[in-house]
Amino acid sequence: MPEAILMKGNDAVGEAAVIAGCHYYFAYPITPQNELAAYMAKRLPDVGGTFLQAESEIASINMVLGASAAGVRAMTSSSSPGISLKQEGISYLAGCKLPAVVVNMMRGGPGLGNIAGAQGDYFQATKGGGHGDYRNIVLAPSSVQELADLTVLAFDLADTYRMVAMILGDGYLGQMSESVVLPEPTGKRFDKSSWSITGCAGREARYIASLRLSPEDGLEKIVLDLQDTYDKVTAREIRCDTYHCDDAEVVLVAFGLAARICKAAVNALRAQGVRAGLFRPITLWPFPSQALLETAGKTRHVLVVEMNAGQMVEDVRQALGDRTPIDFYGRVGAMLVEVERIVEKVKSYA
Amino acid sequence: MPEAILMKGNDAVGEAAVIAGCHYYFAYPITPQNELAAYMAKRLPDVGGTFLQAESEIASINMVLGASAAGVRAMTSSSSPGISLKQEGISYLAGCKLPAVVVNMMRGGPGLGNIAGAQGDYFQATKGGGHGDYRNIVLAPSSVQELADLTVLAFDLADTYRMVAMILGDGYLGQMSESVVLPEPTGKRFDKSSWSITGCAGREARYIASLRLSPEDGLEKIVLDLQDTYDKVTAREIRCDTYHCDDAEVVLVAFGLAARICKAAVNALRAQGVRAGLFRPITLWPFPSQALLETAGKTRHVLVVEMNAGQMVEDVRQALGDRTPIDFYGRVGAMLVEVERIVEKVKSYA
Amino acid sequence: MPEAILMKGNDAVGEAAVIAGCHYYFAYPITPQNELAAYMAKRLPDVGGTFLQAESEIASINMVLGASAAGVRAMTSSSSPGISLKQEGISYLAGCKLPAVVVNMMRGGPGLGNIAGAQGDYFQATKGGGHGDYRNIVLAPSSVQELADLTVLAFDLADTYRMVAMILGDGYLGQMSESVVLPEPTGKRFDKSSWSITGCAGREARYIASLRLSPEDGLEKIVLDLQDTYDKVTAREIRCDTYHCDDAEVVLVAFGLAARICKAAVNALRAQGVRAGLFRPITLWPFPSQALLETAGKTRHVLVVEMNAGQMVEDVRQALGDRTPIDFYGRVGAMLVEVERIVEKVKSYA
Amino acid sequence: MPEAILMKGNDAVGEAAVIAGCHYYFAYPITPQNELAAYMAKRLPDVGGTFLQAESEIASINMVLGASAAGVRAMTSSSSPGISLKQEGISYLAGCKLPAVVVNMMRGGPGLGNIAGAQGDYFQATKGGGHGDYRNIVLAPSSVQELADLTVLAFDLADTYRMVAMILGDGYLGQMSESVVLPEPTGKRFDKSSWSITGCAGREARYIASLRLSPEDGLEKIVLDLQDTYDKVTAREIRCDTYHCDDAEVVLVAFGLAARICKAAVNALRAQGVRAGLFRPITLWPFPSQALLETAGKTRHVLVVEMNAGQMVEDVRQALGDRTPIDFYGRVGAMLVEVERIVEKVKSYA
Repeated sequence: MPEAILMKGNDAVGEAAVIAGCHYYFAYPITPQNELAAYMAKRLPDVGGTFLQAESEIASINMVLGASAAGVRAMTSSSSPGISLKQEGISYLAGCKLPAVVVNMMRGGPGLGNIAGAQGDYFQATKGGGHGDYRNIVLAPSSVQELADLTVLAFDLADTYRMVAMILGDGYLGQMSESVVLPEPTGKRFDKSSWSITGCAGREARYIASLRLSPEDGLEKIVLDLQDTYDKVTAREIRCDTYHCDDAEVVLVAFGLAARICKAAVNALRAQGVRAGLFRPITLWPFPSQALLETAGKTRHVLVVEMNAGQMVEDVRQALGDRTPIDFYGRVGAMLVEVERIVEKVKSYA
Repeated sequence: MPEAILMKGNDAVGEAAVIAGCHYYFAYPITPQNELAAYMAKRLPDVGGTFLQAESEIASINMVLGASAAGVRAMTSSSSPGISLKQEGISYLAGCKLPAVVVNMMRGGPGLGNIAGAQGDYFQATKGGGHGDYRNIVLAPSSVQELADLTVLAFDLADTYRMVAMILGDGYLGQMSESVVLPEPTGKRFDKSSWSITGCAGREARYIASLRLSPEDGLEKIVLDLQDTYDKVTAREIRCDTYHCDDAEVVLVAFGLAARICKAAVNALRAQGVRAGLFRPITLWPFPSQALLETAGKTRHVLVVEMNAGQMVEDVRQALGDRTPIDFYGRVGAMLVEVERIVEKVKSYA
Repeated sequence: MPEAILMKGNDAVGEAAVIAGCHYYFAYPITPQNELAAYMAKRLPDVGGTFLQAESEIASINMVLGASAAGVRAMTSSSSPGISLKQEGISYLAGCKLPAVVVNMMRGGPGLGNIAGAQGDYFQATKGGGHGDYRNIVLAPSSVQELADLTVLAFDLADTYRMVAMILGDGYLGQMSESVVLPEPTGKRFDKSSWSITGCAGREARYIASLRLSPEDGLEKIVLDLQDTYDKVTAREIRCDTYHCDDAEVVLVAFGLAARICKAAVNALRAQGVRAGLFRPITLWPFPSQALLETAGKTRHVLVVEMNAGQMVEDVRQALGDRTPIDFYGRVGAMLVEVERIVEKVKSYA
Repeated sequence: MPEAILMKGNDAVGEAAVIAGCHYYFAYPITPQNELAAYMAKRLPDVGGTFLQAESEIASINMVLGASAAGVRAMTSSSSPGISLKQEGISYLAGCKLPAVVVNMMRGGPGLGNIAGAQGDYFQATKGGGHGDYRNIVLAPSSVQELADLTVLAFDLADTYRMVAMILGDGYLGQMSESVVLPEPTGKRFDKSSWSITGCAGREARYIASLRLSPEDGLEKIVLDLQDTYDKVTAREIRCDTYHCDDAEVVLVAFGLAARICKAAVNALRAQGVRAGLFRPITLWPFPSQALLETAGKTRHVLVVEMNAGQMVEDVRQALGDRTPIDFYGRVGAMLVEVERIVEKVKSYA
């Protein structure tokens, strides 16, 4: 049986990436996720891989693009302001239909903000911080174990759909040390030989780019293909988790670290006889609208809890329409939401 | 009486900026909005202003930040990929509470895409392409006249609320030549002496930055202040336009160039006896949810028309909930939506 | 009569540049010459000029190139490592036959070294730190007055010969405050209309560049033209100064700050009855070989004194051949040469 | 017996570097030396090495600095304008006492010039294109065989003296294909453990830098140490070659490709009964002054032949003083010197 070991969140992402066969990691330093870069700098030479601290955030996302175009698994990571700088590159990856894994260990913002953990980049991650009609798969871990598991999953999803899969963690999660059972390699094989740039000896040369100047180049066709892919992802890859929702009268909706705090609130409420439950989206995009509707559509009240000023709440509103009253509780500036406050709010709906 | 002149959209933005007292313009070249830079290069010396073609998109948005911190009106412009590169800087402007005007003449995306006009950056503009909890005021002109008028308005809004106001046009609009009556200066005065960096002779030194490392620095307080500002903007600054909505059974919702095409469709439908109307948000953020609800909440059907894969439609869904069936028609890849197709769709709701 | 005022060396360069009609100054900060940038930042707006702190040393020299191509007087300044970064740009200026003034307030090197004054960049300045067959006019001031006077001269020489004129000062000189009578504008007019890029309305378009790929482009012809220009400069523009050389048995050769120290040594030696003199090149390139030969060719001994490990001494050797014994005394690491040591050395030749 | 193979000059440098144990190569592309980068890109993975195309010339020289500080053999290459951009970094390497090999396959200059071969960077290479009192060992190959041999030597010299060794070739030489017997590894071992940065587990941390702000940091001492090293190099490492000099009445002095052309001229002159010889410096710095003096000091005439406007001729003048008449023949703009013209000149001295 695989052994549980104690591991820091950022390190767990790194080791999981190596398990997933990612041998190319490019990044520019920013707190609070530098442990991940440090881990990869030490670890990748063991597996014959390449760690490269790029000259800028922009360079690092474009190195990922280059590596991905060559058919290998590649990853970059950063924290909020650094992720903003990568938006052009992420849009380019989408335009080129290239798989890649991008990790955002969110810090407090906007601007330089602070270096604690936050959830202020939900919109950026799920609505496309970059330009044009594209989507990223966005995975929201809420434990070190899940950081590892979802990182492995992210690589498979990215390769399956040839798109960016983003791990949207937060500074606190990356810094936490928890027991983790390292995942096994999934063993799935992705044949990239039909599109990757690997030297054209014996075959026609290929070209990977996102510029489609002439109508004949068919930008419309490409974007329609992308939308088609997004439809497939939405049909197949939605993931969510529920806790005590079966008989819940009030459903909390939260992701990542906020969901852990909500779990404690559910426990506290249950202990006081209040039938509360927790709905936790694991894929933030595609958002589990249908599952949420089924879970919370007929409850008395829904409370969305985020470590931001209210972002996922917009997707909850779209999912539930007018069926259930929706309340929001959030804290900003990288402050943690509080169990007491959640309990209090839920009890007020009685 | 002020005279109407024939002017290209991009030029109209430039002249309107000068009328608004903007003497500082920084940008990096990208099609299809280079006419604006060319206009400013020629025009700003006349008024003792500074045109500077920066070494990168990132430099240009940060030059705007510096100029704005010094208390002057400053503007930058670009097109989709260039705007993606500015996302970090826009978030910094928000974190510093600095006014600025940013113009995005959208082109087809994602990636380099093409150089025609598109509306694929609605999400990026309205949901915050950058990191952290912040918002931009987003204005969506649909004629050259409105490009000029909204540019003047953007400067006043930016200064009133100390935030970024974005003109979200598109490549076609910027290239169009139309008759325009240049707006008058509004004459409003904004006293920035209490916060701008103007040399600290005779007063205590100030510091404008978005880094708030220690809890004492109060990032939470700052973000709450921002949210408070955003509430005020939402209460006061929503703008929208309606066309034949009074007796409409079907309401089209569209912005910018798509709205012009929808107007033609309304006319065609009315000629055929179909009571169609058009609801056109002018502020995309804050979105005119309440006005839309009042206009379209009780109609038989709503059709959202965008030159993208469906972005504003999410805000329409939030606004209307389950009250009215909502359909979407869009074209991607910088293709124009078509009157015939809109007419056909509307007639299918009968 | 013009009044003497007390001025810091770096400021004197700045004011002299303005007097010379230089309204364009571009630079990147580096100690010990930042006062010059600060002076220009304050002063240039008074005359409608442009101060721009560029994003790098490389950018600043290329901005000078651009401004010069447009027909205006432009200057950049830096200190040793920064000047190394400009070598490519200086070679481009030469290849384009463009006038420009570059100021190097030398610090201790190699590498980052220290921020005191030194003379370690003589070779770089006079032998062409950049690539290819080109020369700069190099002027070596030894007082604040001369910093001002030679700056004005540098602009005239640069324009006369369409080449780079460099002020080779040192950190100590730039920091010194001395009495200075600001020079008058020379009133010379340089008509650049035959070659500058000023908009081609009504004439054929021009093109200024240093790339000459095809033989037809005639790189050879251009380099021969340059050599012809350098011959003219050598014939007409050599400047040097002598002190007590008429009856000197031992001649010191030194430039800049070292020459001031040598002057004190000459005085001390004369007071002791030793007939010493000082030969001070003011143009380091073209080097005053003939004048030195006439002055020192028949003396008993020559002592070259430099604040480096021995650089100008190579030009002295070329000028004098085997006619006179040549000794060298230098200090490195931004240390000052010492009067006592010079006196001692000279007395040892008796 | 080792086999002779046909190899292009640029490839020979690459293979020789690998033979010398250089596993780290960083460069930015520039014609006419891109074959070398292409060779290393293919070849280094075979030996577990790292090829990295850097984002700029400046980055590449600083990557060499970093690799060298870590105790490994590292190389960069470029052509004239690119080498100008590296001057700051080369000076930093000197200030840090770090070994490195830099290859300059010269093209025509100044500025962008053209992409043919030239010798216009003699001054830059030998007099220190960068700032401060430092020197590079400069090796001038004149055949593909020598390109290979001197590259191996360059690494040993760089490591022996902890300084930069430069291969000063030219574009023609790099493009030539000639028969070459690849050199054997020299087998010399250089223990860098006393100074390199290899992780400080179990020992005190080290610091490699060139900034020495305070007098206590001892910039003077460091520069004196450098000069001491340069004295040793001058005493031990001078290399030159002679051809028919024993009874020569006229001695040609030339390096690199010009020397090959001179050899043909010597042959032609000898065939006509003129006793001509060729003195070819292999180390341009340190310059073989003493050997030249012994060889040519008593001949009737010396003719310096260079593919530039006259650079090495200055060192010849210093070496010979007034002992022998010195003439110069050069061509600029990447034009080849001509045998006929050399023959004619030599015959004119009769």
